[in-house]
Amino acid sequence: MIKVAINGYGTIGKRVADAVNAQPDMEVVGVSKTRPSAEAYIANMRGYPLYIADIAKRDTFENVGIEVAGDIEDMLKHADVVVDATPGGVGKKNKTLYELYNLKAIWQGGEDHDVAGFSFNSSCNYESALGRDFVRVVSCNTTGLCRIINAVDNVFGVTKVRATMVRRGSDPGGIKKGPVDAIVLNPVTIPSHHGPDVQTVLPHIDIVTLAMIVPTTFCHMHVVQMDLGADATREEILNIIEEHPRMGLVRKGTGITSTAELKEYASDMGRPRSDLWESCIYEESVSVVGKRDLYMFQAIHQEADVVVENIDAIRAMMNGTPDPLESVAITNKALGFTPL
Amino acid sequence: MIKVAINGYGTIGKRVADAVNAQPDMEVVGVSKTRPSAEAYIANMRGYPLYIADIAKRDTFENVGIEVAGDIEDMLKHADVVVDATPGGVGKKNKTLYELYNLKAIWQGGEDHDVAGFSFNSSCNYESALGRDFVRVVSCNTTGLCRIINAVDNVFGVTKVRATMVRRGSDPGGIKKGPVDAIVLNPVTIPSHHGPDVQTVLPHIDIVTLAMIVPTTFCHMHVVQMDLGADATREEILNIIEEHPRMGLVRKGTGITSTAELKEYASDMGRPRSDLWESCIYEESVSVVGKRDLYMFQAIHQEADVVVENIDAIRAMMNGTPDPLESVAITNKALGFTPL
Amino acid sequence: MIKVAINGYGTIGKRVADAVNAQPDMEVVGVSKTRPSAEAYIANMRGYPLYIADIAKRDTFENVGIEVAGDIEDMLKHADVVVDATPGGVGKKNKTLYELYNLKAIWQGGEDHDVAGFSFNSSCNYESALGRDFVRVVSCNTTGLCRIINAVDNVFGVTKVRATMVRRGSDPGGIKKGPVDAIVLNPVTIPSHHGPDVQTVLPHIDIVTLAMIVPTTFCHMHVVQMDLGADATREEILNIIEEHPRMGLVRKGTGITSTAELKEYASDMGRPRSDLWESCIYEESVSVVGKRDLYMFQAIHQEADVVVENIDAIRAMMNGTPDPLESVAITNKALGFTPL
Amino acid sequence: MIKVAINGYGTIGKRVADAVNAQPDMEVVGVSKTRPSAEAYIANMRGYPLYIADIAKRDTFENVGIEVAGDIEDMLKHADVVVDATPGGVGKKNKTLYELYNLKAIWQGGEDHDVAGFSFNSSCNYESALGRDFVRVVSCNTTGLCRIINAVDNVFGVTKVRATMVRRGSDPGGIKKGPVDAIVLNPVTIPSHHGPDVQTVLPHIDIVTLAMIVPTTFCHMHVVQMDLGADATREEILNIIEEHPRMGLVRKGTGITSTAELKEYASDMGRPRSDLWESCIYEESVSVVGKRDLYMFQAIHQEADVVVENIDAIRAMMNGTPDPLESVAITNKALGFTPL
Repeated sequence: MIKVAINGYGTIGKRVADAVNAQPDMEVVGVSKTRPSAEAYIANMRGYPLYIADIAKRDTFENVGIEVAGDIEDMLKHADVVVDATPGGVGKKNKTLYELYNLKAIWQGGEDHDVAGFSFNSSCNYESALGRDFVRVVSCNTTGLCRIINAVDNVFGVTKVRATMVRRGSDPGGIKKGPVDAIVLNPVTIPSHHGPDVQTVLPHIDIVTLAMIVPTTFCHMHVVQMDLGADATREEILNIIEEHPRMGLVRKGTGITSTAELKEYASDMGRPRSDLWESCIYEESVSVVGKRDLYMFQAIHQEADVVVENIDAIRAMMNGTPDPLESVAITNKALGFTPL
Repeated sequence: MIKVAINGYGTIGKRVADAVNAQPDMEVVGVSKTRPSAEAYIANMRGYPLYIADIAKRDTFENVGIEVAGDIEDMLKHADVVVDATPGGVGKKNKTLYELYNLKAIWQGGEDHDVAGFSFNSSCNYESALGRDFVRVVSCNTTGLCRIINAVDNVFGVTKVRATMVRRGSDPGGIKKGPVDAIVLNPVTIPSHHGPDVQTVLPHIDIVTLAMIVPTTFCHMHVVQMDLGADATREEILNIIEEHPRMGLVRKGTGITSTAELKEYASDMGRPRSDLWESCIYEESVSVVGKRDLYMFQAIHQEADVVVENIDAIRAMMNGTPDPLESVAITNKALGFTPL
Repeated sequence: MIKVAINGYGTIGKRVADAVNAQPDMEVVGVSKTRPSAEAYIANMRGYPLYIADIAKRDTFENVGIEVAGDIEDMLKHADVVVDATPGGVGKKNKTLYELYNLKAIWQGGEDHDVAGFSFNSSCNYESALGRDFVRVVSCNTTGLCRIINAVDNVFGVTKVRATMVRRGSDPGGIKKGPVDAIVLNPVTIPSHHGPDVQTVLPHIDIVTLAMIVPTTFCHMHVVQMDLGADATREEILNIIEEHPRMGLVRKGTGITSTAELKEYASDMGRPRSDLWESCIYEESVSVVGKRDLYMFQAIHQEADVVVENIDAIRAMMNGTPDPLESVAITNKALGFTPL
Repeated sequence: MIKVAINGYGTIGKRVADAVNAQPDMEVVGVSKTRPSAEAYIANMRGYPLYIADIAKRDTFENVGIEVAGDIEDMLKHADVVVDATPGGVGKKNKTLYELYNLKAIWQGGEDHDVAGFSFNSSCNYESALGRDFVRVVSCNTTGLCRIINAVDNVFGVTKVRATMVRRGSDPGGIKKGPVDAIVLNPVTIPSHHGPDVQTVLPHIDIVTLAMIVPTTFCHMHVVQMDLGADATREEILNIIEEHPRMGLVRKGTGITSTAELKEYASDMGRPRSDLWESCIYEESVSVVGKRDLYMFQAIHQEADVVVENIDAIRAMMNGTPDPLESVAITNKALGFTPL
């Protein structure tokens, strides 16, 4: 069993912990938290040993009934690999500590590529992660772009990608970030950072991205346009999506036209936390104008799509299986992943 | 086994179906839908026989891969009791049909009291529902008010209630209703209909209610103020809440101060659809000013709190058990209801 | 003086009335309303004769202190031209009435092209509107697209346009329409109707458009991408925008990155109703990738940009001046239009 | 002419500047800003000399075309009185500077009472401000509460006030603050700080307040309930409101039921920046239950209602007139204040 520590039990960390816990070849040796919170109670309910950043604060946890197993260094001693899910920019500072404990480590897309020197997407470059010590799983948006671009590129060649990301303003559980009533260009300048970030995984892709933020909480919505290198039909593109283990079609018959209805559907399906680990491509939107100008809308669940990528990254780094499709299949099956 | 049909498989109906399905003494004989939709697929996934309003539309369902068991009259033939969860105002029109099939029936709070002649809350008047043919389960807001008012009234006497309901604008899966950026007085006039509606369950309570709508999707927030008939302490009120099987305390230690954080917590707990069947009273808000002026905030999950009431109503009408606490315990246990 | 009646004194109609009233060569002979409302009081405050759809309802207006001048047919008798600003789809039904009174008429973009047989944008085809009896002013989004596409096409040639419209969910004064927390694809299919609508004005343009709706109230945000027929620099594009009387640059120095800050700025400038009659192009966003791939963000004030187009349309139809630039200059000056 | 400096040309400061500029007995000698911004351009457009916090940054202003008159100390040299409209908590630190320049000073409600030792509302305690050196104008919510409570107390006596403030999450021009989809109890504990703040102006009033935040941008909505010391009728309360120069009735005939429609109406009326300087009480909501239990909804425009109070405070401190009603009348008239 691969022993996994999760440093940072927040939006991503708590999902990675549950996904690790569900795998046949992995176990959670601990999760960490800096302050008492609703999530700290959840860690206790789940039975994950809870480690805290500053052991001097043990009382502030225990006084409200939260059990503490030790400090973060105690946690690292029990692990083979650590998933750093601390807030963006903080993860980098933890690298020295992970090296001190001789640990393999995974960072999230909020850190720069340089923190690990390798940016990961299980559908694109799993093999290159085999046995690596340090890996960065790219952000939710980059993950969503890499999946579809790579899959189409493999079949038809992609000569140019233009993508607009309409991003959610706040995670569903957040109360501080806005906006309340604004469309915010983030950034105003073009391109956004997403294009270059895709190139950390797929260096040969020519891509221009734009991004804005709107007052919603669930899913980023991508407009993806690709110039294709060979003639394609709509049906061929739909087939690529249907056969991909990390992309799903939002079927016309469901009548779903939005992010809210999509969340309701995930919730009704019984998905834990309404999580959509797959890219959700709206079937009716997939369009080939002429023969080489491809368009589609895809919803990317910002809290979930990278979770399964973290699991595959762990397996690759620990040499669990050399076959990306096998790893993806194990990960998906363990989560009870069923098609949309 | 009590055979239950659910007429209207939407926001409330789909939850009632799952709750019925979880009970040891009940089974779902069918659910109904008027049009193909994401929820129709879910009914199929769950294995609930799906009946449709207009059998002439069978093809429109089957063409998108949704199995149909028959029309609504077919469904009613298999049932002992029907839960009407059709949109407000529609339920009344179905009464003749239910009478025709000699069925016991439950309506929701969107219908007037007169439709059944009896308005139900399991903590207040379960005994009066024993063996009844027709019952109306009061609305989510009225349910939330009845629980706390009755519980406090039983111990201290309540001489006056003033309550303000800050209501969510749309259910989470909705995309049409607003507002986007407005506080809407609904109604502008005082009192709102909620006070009189409480009196359909608790006729002796003196109550004035006000209501407004805001652009959120999860939970109504109630400001409840009560003039007490006897001196009380904060601790005594907290005890009443803690001991009540349908009220929960949002603990200070969780750091939860909002509806969004509360939903995240319910989701993290693994509650199906993040459902909060209990009234969620913010521990820190419970305040007794002087000795007889009580205040609190409570969050009422508009999609969920009436679901468990429907189950108890079924059991009372079918003479399942004469003891309200026993029925509530069975219902809660079957749902895996654990304290907040 | 051109005598103008405005049929429908709502979001667009009340702005057209004020703009007509400000022109040196036009006057408002009447505005219409179907029900007493805040806007009916405003018509009285402004001194615009108020006509009502159903004269039998005169009392419901007068009882709340609103003066009524007569019914709509009375209004039409006083006019040379009528601006129909009734809700989309209603305008078409009024055509027979306008013909009966031998009136020139303008419809808004909510009506189909066929209602008038001519779709208007003052920067694109003013000359073709001279002396016409019936004109349709295209919608706010189409107006915004036509301005920039035509201006760039005139200089560099435009071989392909791709545009995404991120639309506001509700007007600022609306309380019923949502969504509250969703990104809605509207439509899910690609292309949206905007591309073909641009072609009613600029038939030779190759354009694909996509649209979605988000929970905001002020401005649609356009992502506009154009393949150019000749090499261009960013500075050349900025010059085209600066010199255009109906496009404005949102300057980097203002720090404005959103629709909300833009509205605040318009409000601070003293613009009536914070109206932005010009397309608002974010200076920093204007980008030429390579030499022929142009990108920009533009905000389109859905309540205002067509208002000035209506004024120019009136002037063209009444043969006020044959020169589009002269008409635009008169319109702008009368409104006190100063650059952003 | 009273020479007024406005330190902090933001949401409140820019409105105070325009209001000062409109008065017959006052002039703006300068406004201040720390960074180039849209508002700095507006100061230049208005012709208000713009002073900056750090004169070393002069170039960053001038490079984007914004004229700078000097630093803040230069501004203070020209003033008789300074209105401090810096962010909450900053104002206190400026006191030493104002004393150094021997200036009278006004702070806003974001500062504690102690900063000035006197908390002001022109309808309640104007006379006590005559000739004072330091005055704090209470916050928008406290201003709104003081106006109605004092007016009713003067006629009927008020033995208890209970008020709930449903607060807007962000100002209209803001893009960072949320929430996006949450009702936030702020604070969870009861009472909120508003009750004690009312007592800085009206020490004898017994008041309990509660507060929450919702995702809207325009106006706080107050539910105000008062126990009266003498019998009252609804008509008597309406008369009190109608005769008050800083309270207005939102008339039933307008059909306005929300904050959004109210803003639209203010905008249509031509109010600068859609400002509502008066408390906006919904006519239909004013209710007397029994004879001594008074309820109403009032909307309080968070950006505007204190602006006119600042003007009256200046006049009182400078001994402009000893009569509060005269000062209020001058202020209102200069702003072109007409009834709702």
